[in-house]
Amino acid sequence: MFKTVPLSESQTYFPGQPYSVSVLKVGYCLPQPDGTFRADGTITLITGPKTVLVDTGGPWDRDFLLTTLKEKGLEPGDIDVVVGTHGHSDHVGNLSVFPAAVMIVGYDVSDGDTYRPNQLAEGQGYAIDEQVCVVPSPGHTEQHVSVQVTGTSAGTVLVAGDLFECCTDEDSWRDLSVNTAVQEVSRQKALQTADVIIPGHGLPFRVLRN
Amino acid sequence: MFKTVPLSESQTYFPGQPYSVSVLKVGYCLPQPDGTFRADGTITLITGPKTVLVDTGGPWDRDFLLTTLKEKGLEPGDIDVVVGTHGHSDHVGNLSVFPAAVMIVGYDVSDGDTYRPNQLAEGQGYAIDEQVCVVPSPGHTEQHVSVQVTGTSAGTVLVAGDLFECCTDEDSWRDLSVNTAVQEVSRQKALQTADVIIPGHGLPFRVLRN
Repeated sequence: MFKTVPLSESQTYFPGQPYSVSVLKVGYCLPQPDGTFRADGTITLITGPKTVLVDTGGPWDRDFLLTTLKEKGLEPGDIDVVVGTHGHSDHVGNLSVFPAAVMIVGYDVSDGDTYRPNQLAEGQGYAIDEQVCVVPSPGHTEQHVSVQVTGTSAGTVLVAGDLFECCTDEDSWRDLSVNTAVQEVSRQKALQTADVIIPGHGLPFRVLRN
Repeated sequence: MFKTVPLSESQTYFPGQPYSVSVLKVGYCLPQPDGTFRADGTITLITGPKTVLVDTGGPWDRDFLLTTLKEKGLEPGDIDVVVGTHGHSDHVGNLSVFPAAVMIVGYDVSDGDTYRPNQLAEGQGYAIDEQVCVVPSPGHTEQHVSVQVTGTSAGTVLVAGDLFECCTDEDSWRDLSVNTAVQEVSRQKALQTADVIIPGHGLPFRVLRN
């Protein structure tokens, strides 16, 4: 069985060799009194032999993203791979900032306008290298992916997009899922393999297994 | 019964009062000898009381889009509404060019980070005004939308995203569909209502009904 433990707002950096994982922006989803929702997706940077950005926030995050990358000494051209976990506007809002990156959005892998064949739809991961792998995690949308980073000081980190909304999302994830049965399977797989999960709309959390 | 008739490369502008529809870029999907595909999505501009951009092409189209809009006397800030028919990278690659627009990506309608409730998931259209309506057209993805423009000189124009790949797509659309049965229903509805269909990866075509 699994237990999930919330991490604090200061625990958004997971160093490692060769890869470190930094949450650049913690996503949120806040119902408003007028019936609207204020929402943005988590933005995560993976640094090491390759530089990988997982999710890009909403279109309104463009300047935040450029500034935050600059603070880390990075220009958009330094990003090797951009992953959009799924095609919702609060996750794929800034793809155009990175026209030179390999672009993985859901199950599509492209390099400019050239789309590479892959086996994500058949349930196989797309390895960026030995430590970083894009894994299919359908349910929230039918072509949703997550990014697994092994060997950090916190163990295996899963950048999960909206596979998980937040640490305590049992009341909310089903309402946002296009296929709850499929997503439940994807969630169980994630809980079996990840030590830390970075969800799409909340703080990272730790997974404890008995 | 329906018959679809391809239009020529010069027939990419459908004038009307109050709305005109211009195809800014004709999408394509070209299998390559090495097993990859070169692909980009159709980009369409609707002008009238509101200025609506339907699909934004891949991230590599940013400069093309800025230049083409400028040639029409438009700055990004002049676009009132951006519609991403679905969240694939060749359709939502340039959302960040239009941070001030109302953003409709699949079934999500947002204004900055504020997401507005809507009935797209319940099968109801989201009217931009009396002539322009975002209509759910699921199948290619489960939250796919199209944009219907009534009253042009060519009749009702449907900017269809990947509901249709191209005029003669019977060999290809099923392979790219997450739910062919659902998409078949969406396609039949489109063929019953539209006089011209602008598909996601080919030239516009006319629909003839007996």
